[in-house]
Amino acid sequence: MFGITKERAERGVWDREVEDPQTPGFGEVSITVRQAGICGTDYHIYKWDAWSAGRVKPPLTMGHEFVGEIAAVGPGVSHLRAGQRVSCESHITCGHCVQCRTGRAHLCANTQIIGVDRAGCFAEAITVPAGNVWVVDPRIPDHHAAVFDPVGNAMHTVTRIGVSGRDVLVVGAGAIGLFAVAICRAHGARSIVVHEPNTYRAGLVKGLGADLVLDPSDGRALAAWERGLNGEGPDAILEMSGYAPAIRGALKVARNGADVALLGLPAGPVSLDLAEDVVMRGLTLCGVTGRRMFDTWFAVEAFMLRAPELMDRVVTHIMPARSYAQGFALLDQGACGKVVLDFAGLRGRAA
Amino acid sequence: MFGITKERAERGVWDREVEDPQTPGFGEVSITVRQAGICGTDYHIYKWDAWSAGRVKPPLTMGHEFVGEIAAVGPGVSHLRAGQRVSCESHITCGHCVQCRTGRAHLCANTQIIGVDRAGCFAEAITVPAGNVWVVDPRIPDHHAAVFDPVGNAMHTVTRIGVSGRDVLVVGAGAIGLFAVAICRAHGARSIVVHEPNTYRAGLVKGLGADLVLDPSDGRALAAWERGLNGEGPDAILEMSGYAPAIRGALKVARNGADVALLGLPAGPVSLDLAEDVVMRGLTLCGVTGRRMFDTWFAVEAFMLRAPELMDRVVTHIMPARSYAQGFALLDQGACGKVVLDFAGLRGRAA
Amino acid sequence: MFGITKERAERGVWDREVEDPQTPGFGEVSITVRQAGICGTDYHIYKWDAWSAGRVKPPLTMGHEFVGEIAAVGPGVSHLRAGQRVSCESHITCGHCVQCRTGRAHLCANTQIIGVDRAGCFAEAITVPAGNVWVVDPRIPDHHAAVFDPVGNAMHTVTRIGVSGRDVLVVGAGAIGLFAVAICRAHGARSIVVHEPNTYRAGLVKGLGADLVLDPSDGRALAAWERGLNGEGPDAILEMSGYAPAIRGALKVARNGADVALLGLPAGPVSLDLAEDVVMRGLTLCGVTGRRMFDTWFAVEAFMLRAPELMDRVVTHIMPARSYAQGFALLDQGACGKVVLDFAGLRGRAA
Amino acid sequence: MFGITKERAERGVWDREVEDPQTPGFGEVSITVRQAGICGTDYHIYKWDAWSAGRVKPPLTMGHEFVGEIAAVGPGVSHLRAGQRVSCESHITCGHCVQCRTGRAHLCANTQIIGVDRAGCFAEAITVPAGNVWVVDPRIPDHHAAVFDPVGNAMHTVTRIGVSGRDVLVVGAGAIGLFAVAICRAHGARSIVVHEPNTYRAGLVKGLGADLVLDPSDGRALAAWERGLNGEGPDAILEMSGYAPAIRGALKVARNGADVALLGLPAGPVSLDLAEDVVMRGLTLCGVTGRRMFDTWFAVEAFMLRAPELMDRVVTHIMPARSYAQGFALLDQGACGKVVLDFAGLRGRAA
Repeated sequence: MFGITKERAERGVWDREVEDPQTPGFGEVSITVRQAGICGTDYHIYKWDAWSAGRVKPPLTMGHEFVGEIAAVGPGVSHLRAGQRVSCESHITCGHCVQCRTGRAHLCANTQIIGVDRAGCFAEAITVPAGNVWVVDPRIPDHHAAVFDPVGNAMHTVTRIGVSGRDVLVVGAGAIGLFAVAICRAHGARSIVVHEPNTYRAGLVKGLGADLVLDPSDGRALAAWERGLNGEGPDAILEMSGYAPAIRGALKVARNGADVALLGLPAGPVSLDLAEDVVMRGLTLCGVTGRRMFDTWFAVEAFMLRAPELMDRVVTHIMPARSYAQGFALLDQGACGKVVLDFAGLRGRAA
Repeated sequence: MFGITKERAERGVWDREVEDPQTPGFGEVSITVRQAGICGTDYHIYKWDAWSAGRVKPPLTMGHEFVGEIAAVGPGVSHLRAGQRVSCESHITCGHCVQCRTGRAHLCANTQIIGVDRAGCFAEAITVPAGNVWVVDPRIPDHHAAVFDPVGNAMHTVTRIGVSGRDVLVVGAGAIGLFAVAICRAHGARSIVVHEPNTYRAGLVKGLGADLVLDPSDGRALAAWERGLNGEGPDAILEMSGYAPAIRGALKVARNGADVALLGLPAGPVSLDLAEDVVMRGLTLCGVTGRRMFDTWFAVEAFMLRAPELMDRVVTHIMPARSYAQGFALLDQGACGKVVLDFAGLRGRAA
Repeated sequence: MFGITKERAERGVWDREVEDPQTPGFGEVSITVRQAGICGTDYHIYKWDAWSAGRVKPPLTMGHEFVGEIAAVGPGVSHLRAGQRVSCESHITCGHCVQCRTGRAHLCANTQIIGVDRAGCFAEAITVPAGNVWVVDPRIPDHHAAVFDPVGNAMHTVTRIGVSGRDVLVVGAGAIGLFAVAICRAHGARSIVVHEPNTYRAGLVKGLGADLVLDPSDGRALAAWERGLNGEGPDAILEMSGYAPAIRGALKVARNGADVALLGLPAGPVSLDLAEDVVMRGLTLCGVTGRRMFDTWFAVEAFMLRAPELMDRVVTHIMPARSYAQGFALLDQGACGKVVLDFAGLRGRAA
Repeated sequence: MFGITKERAERGVWDREVEDPQTPGFGEVSITVRQAGICGTDYHIYKWDAWSAGRVKPPLTMGHEFVGEIAAVGPGVSHLRAGQRVSCESHITCGHCVQCRTGRAHLCANTQIIGVDRAGCFAEAITVPAGNVWVVDPRIPDHHAAVFDPVGNAMHTVTRIGVSGRDVLVVGAGAIGLFAVAICRAHGARSIVVHEPNTYRAGLVKGLGADLVLDPSDGRALAAWERGLNGEGPDAILEMSGYAPAIRGALKVARNGADVALLGLPAGPVSLDLAEDVVMRGLTLCGVTGRRMFDTWFAVEAFMLRAPELMDRVVTHIMPARSYAQGFALLDQGACGKVVLDFAGLRGRAA
């Protein structure tokens, strides 16, 4: 079958015939893929940066966020059936460590990620554990259902600290940052300010209802905003950039007692003035990874049902799977929100 | 009256005749001091380090943790009366900022600290706002009541994350770290490991019921302990050292999802591997300052009533106020837990 | 000055010349009233039911929710000034009990309520403690600012359990229930179902964006809804009716583990099947009274700034203060959302 | 093999030869039973009260709390092995409902309970799902490990509201109430008062370190205690009796804002003054059932390791399995804490 793969340990992404997925074993299901999103992680693997070079073993079918339909269920799976439209949690966890046993499977040290550590969803079909499967509400269209996973990252970040009635600062408006802005709007934030230098993405942010978008490279605009805060800066900060100066800047403007959710992954060590900016001002810094299984999924479903128009504004591109090179180019140019690839068309079927 | 003061902008501490405290104004009370503790903050002012040189304006009567009895109440104070034995919250806050109005006065940006920003308690008497006063339970002896404030720092740190049933690492066993160990024991921690290089303090830790005390400068012992953790390091960390390598080491051994309460104040910026050690492992870092007014005080009172024998082990020295130089010398040598100065004796009265 | 009062211990409400408010004492301010809302509590006093007969001592100026402007500040008040437009928390609390000292002043056992236990705001002016005053954001119009207090009841109820992403049932759509529906919509509830028999109010509910309004007296409609729940009833319930059968019905349909916020005040004992409906299904029942001081006020301000169009739909009537009899008649008929009385016009000034 | 069974739909309990447990299927393990506790639930089934008559289908092997060792593991179980000493969560849940998928499996509506809905552990062996198995720390003796399940009920109740530093009232000191008292002591409660009319159990309570044990049938003693509370009654209440007057009495003395955990199961409806006792005083009532899987188990393990001497005081009787009639008689007489039956001796092996 058709697959989009990391063939070689160098920059790039390829396509070729890959093996059909295995017949589902005990507790597994196989899924025919309809649509799949391109994630920032896929883009890291495409660029073959230090992180991906240290973790991914080519050749590997890429991709981990998708919607499809169940083709077959393995033995021992009684609550799912062929034909159901489903999405899938990309983290496959061990199930018996202290994290898995206390509702924190997203922190399982034995996690395998689809499309990173094992064959991914950028293919016509995939086989996964039944426990990872999420049955999609019929009111949610495919191009939203395909991105449950990254909307889940955004939702996990937002709900880790809570934003109802709070003054929110979102640092960085890549696809997850954009989803986060939309969720903050839907959850009743008092105000939403976004720091994003990319003009295209700043435009998307405005369409999602943010109160202010600032280009952090515009020192004058930034300084003017900071002066206006009067010591009552944002009390809920969503750090999506992983950029050290942005992190330090966010801590500096945070209100005393603010909560700071950290999702962005800095490339190296970050130097912080812990005494002045964290300890003495009572800040809380929360590392966020993955999605809570499956609290976050229920919250995302609620959001998608409530705010389809916001979802539509972030999913900016849907294109045939064979056009994947164009999709990665859009990420390269920063000229997109979320890009979704259509695999259903490979089989001459409507998505 | 007798006062212990910071006379000059240089290392040292002095005593001299200071002015009698003001007659209590509207909403104030004046208190005759019985005993007062020497805090790490007082020691910083004694050493005249960068922080104190930047904040304290000599000459100033020092000291902020004490027990005494009310000498007079000002107009408008109806719930207190002369003769009551009291301690006092050292942070005087504005009362009308967003922090003060939402139960987070310890984060008030307009805070004045007794003995730092205004006349302190190392004197025969002091005048403070009635709202800062805490009436002491008669079952609590003076040498415990004198240190409500630092036990409050420890309690605030412990309760910021909660330790019942958890594996706790306490980094640094100065007086506040020692109180924290005792509180962890009283609150049902599953295990308590302490990192402390000072032999005297390590001995005190053992007497408080810690399971293991490690000298972090003993690389072999530390490595052996870390090997034994099997990826399930402490899930509750109390950082009391402010020492950058210790902070980094604590994050490295933390269990995924651990809570880290930061009380120690690093002297400069601290470089952290946020991606590996905080974001991807879902850690939470909580800055802790002051005491919650007055939730923390109630919790400290409960602890003092339940565990007087643990309190006794940490308050290692009680000495006449005029021997203050000896007290500061003990801090200089690291040869003490908490040192308490007795001011009642100045008046020929038993403490 | 003009005042609306409870003159005699019988059904009714009257107006007459009342004494001018006292010159503000230490820590007090006097306020010229612009607009004031009629609360369900005022209506209870009007009807002279068992509760009001047991608590209120006629003659008494009524009213406790209002907006006005500061006429004079007493000694010791430095953070407020004459001319500021303000609203006011109606609970005057002692300030030094365990509740007041731990951020739970709304549970102070020594509370005095304006217009219930002391002279109220249905008059040209009122004097209150400065600590109760809330400076109103200039973007909030008077007819919204006048009802900070009841919107605060609704906000307190909603935030006591949290509704983002949850399936909410609101039982009873009086003014506070209506505000609660609006807040649930603003805070990102997944779905909102309302039980309300009054046709007029059911119509208001629809305009606020509820998904379904049910007349609980229509057994067939209720049963059809319950059948459709499939054991996954609401997981967040706001009980605003105080009607025993409605409370029991709400517990019956609650999802296992649901949170139930109880604001409505039943007139007598309520018989509950605690074993089946609370213990074995892990429900949480939360009594809600007053507003958290002042966390709730900040949250209400954020809501008023974000959703003025929802506020406008609930404040259905604004009328001159002298028309108060008509206002009480509207409550009697159930033919209103929130009714606001204008006192500014008494002085020939625009509201 | 030997089994203790409910043979007939009438008062009583019997023993007979029962079938050997099934060979473990996919994802299952079979366990040789060493020791098992007699639960209040077993006693209800023995008495054949309305609840058990409505749920249990004789003949059935009883029992659900035990320790044993793994005899065989079924296919698909890779993290357990024969010979491991284990206990077992008695609730077998569906794994895919909203409760199971959000860390609240104890609220799964599809739960089957061992010894209630399917063959129990009062036998030489039992087969259960691997996911229910808990590997026992080698430092925990069999007679403690046998009662992980009821200590878990107590721990769940205590941790549902938290007791560190709080004034606790425990209503009812059956085995679970006794364990709860011990846990409150271990978790740093400020004070512990227990209401228990049974003299034997009141004696056990004293040995666990409660501050006061009251016989609620002694009206004079009760009234004296209540008078002494001065409006500051317990702020954490653990209701273990299911006795309506006791529940009402507990709410009456509760401090404003208190948390009340409800574990006891009333036999019929309970009439409460919700307005006065819950709504206006801001109480929170929390239904508690089962144990959080497996957060509660980790907390119980920590407690058992820390306080074996308290465990020993509650487990008052260990007797051969064949003496089960004597065990049930002790429950009938209220002359025991927890009774443990030894099944290892049936095979001539030391427990």
